[in-house]
Amino acid sequence: MSPWQVLEWLGWLGTLAFAASGALMGVQKRFDLVGVLVLAGVTAVGGGSIRDVVVGSLPPQAFRNEAVLWVVFAVSLLVWRFYGRVERLERPIYYLDTLGLGIFAALGAERGFTFGLGFWGCVFAGTVSGVGGGVLRDLLTGQIPGIFYRNRDLYATAAAGGAAVVYAIYRFLPDLAALALVLGSLTTIALRLSSRWLGLRLPTPRVGD
Amino acid sequence: MSPWQVLEWLGWLGTLAFAASGALMGVQKRFDLVGVLVLAGVTAVGGGSIRDVVVGSLPPQAFRNEAVLWVVFAVSLLVWRFYGRVERLERPIYYLDTLGLGIFAALGAERGFTFGLGFWGCVFAGTVSGVGGGVLRDLLTGQIPGIFYRNRDLYATAAAGGAAVVYAIYRFLPDLAALALVLGSLTTIALRLSSRWLGLRLPTPRVGD
Amino acid sequence: MSPWQVLEWLGWLGTLAFAASGALMGVQKRFDLVGVLVLAGVTAVGGGSIRDVVVGSLPPQAFRNEAVLWVVFAVSLLVWRFYGRVERLERPIYYLDTLGLGIFAALGAERGFTFGLGFWGCVFAGTVSGVGGGVLRDLLTGQIPGIFYRNRDLYATAAAGGAAVVYAIYRFLPDLAALALVLGSLTTIALRLSSRWLGLRLPTPRVGD
Repeated sequence: MSPWQVLEWLGWLGTLAFAASGALMGVQKRFDLVGVLVLAGVTAVGGGSIRDVVVGSLPPQAFRNEAVLWVVFAVSLLVWRFYGRVERLERPIYYLDTLGLGIFAALGAERGFTFGLGFWGCVFAGTVSGVGGGVLRDLLTGQIPGIFYRNRDLYATAAAGGAAVVYAIYRFLPDLAALALVLGSLTTIALRLSSRWLGLRLPTPRVGD
Repeated sequence: MSPWQVLEWLGWLGTLAFAASGALMGVQKRFDLVGVLVLAGVTAVGGGSIRDVVVGSLPPQAFRNEAVLWVVFAVSLLVWRFYGRVERLERPIYYLDTLGLGIFAALGAERGFTFGLGFWGCVFAGTVSGVGGGVLRDLLTGQIPGIFYRNRDLYATAAAGGAAVVYAIYRFLPDLAALALVLGSLTTIALRLSSRWLGLRLPTPRVGD
Repeated sequence: MSPWQVLEWLGWLGTLAFAASGALMGVQKRFDLVGVLVLAGVTAVGGGSIRDVVVGSLPPQAFRNEAVLWVVFAVSLLVWRFYGRVERLERPIYYLDTLGLGIFAALGAERGFTFGLGFWGCVFAGTVSGVGGGVLRDLLTGQIPGIFYRNRDLYATAAAGGAAVVYAIYRFLPDLAALALVLGSLTTIALRLSSRWLGLRLPTPRVGD
């Protein structure tokens, strides 16, 4: 398999994790069956869809290749049926989610670059690909999106870091272009895992300044 | 009148009901006059606009044929002025809302099909056409969107069912294409009304599983 | 400088004020550094981006000319560092915000007109350009958007008024087209300031009607 194909397969694992996190939240909030399906779908493909709206590539990717939506559907039913057991898979879901975050952020930044966006555009496209689904999930369940808060490991920041690496490689190091997606994904994953392991946090404001 | 024209006229009644439900919510939440207008407008045309963004048909339909926005404007002023009396029309509004849900879901699925979407794309386009306005209304008034919750009659599910029927007819039963919109609308309406009359509910999760 | 260039420069001051208001809210809500950056960015360019999605001009303007995003970035860092001092600048920020509201509403309505929208389309494009960023900021921080409420000076209404003036001039008074943006901006600014100075309020519903 080419590196690109490997990435694509790993991306599927990330989609699984995103769909599972949406479905779990739906069950926790006592949504009904269709509510759980919707929440899983929004979490899994919402970020990429916002990205595609912003870069102007419509309909969004997930609607042009529906295989991903069938996977989301199946995952939701499994979570629905085996909620208790899936909930206990917190740790594997965490790692799959990190994998998905890294790959989606890198692919999003690449897509932004392809559509002619500049630095901030690529960073936005990458970050929203990675975190947008979770933000929509939180809004639809009445919560302030968790990614903006302290006391968590780096999340949006990790995605933004990986997206910036992809942009920098395409822009300034064309020799490494073949590796851009891999290096971007690894950057995101390394930032998130090291923040968890080392207790790294972003600064929060000293309001009494 | 052709069946299509009948549907179009019935769709106007649905728009009335959607605008009225948004305006009523705005008055209940003590929004000011412009707030009520905005909420009525978002509720009436928000779903179709999300659909048009997703299928890539911009500007959204309501902005290309503004008659609907003038109707929303008039309805809002009437609700504002005669709030007490309109509020007591709960039952007729319920039936008009059901009519609108059915027609919008069918038209949304048709639009998705026209723009080349597959099964889930059409179901999404139809469902979001029917329920998207109400979801935005709930978000803007600080509520978790009601459609995801149990203890209500089927709503998003009914819209999704009707949209699926439209897709299935266009895809597999082209002989019935002329009837697709009518059959889709009737499916949604039948699902919603029967759920109300029979107390039908979607399953909710057994969390202690 | 041509009047257009003056407007453009004044528009930058409005962007500064919008970014500052987003960043201040982020610090108040104890968002972390990246959260503050995101909130400032969404507040500053979110309204114009919704407008561009709706008129179908993608990617949105801010992503095609990133200078504005670098300004937002710088403002966010300054607010972060000097939060206490910036917070005390309430009054100048109020006036810059009013300036921005007026200019964005006028430019938004012009853009809607250019893309062929009618009356309500232009009013929507202008209003959402002016207030959309603030609405997104409020949603992301878990608040009901403030602009819909009474007991504030006119805000969305002022933007809508200015947008309507721009539309009316382009449509009915082409002789004044060169002045449309200036007159539209001044309308919005005058509406807002007079509502503050004169205690003008929109009517709120008499629910016991």
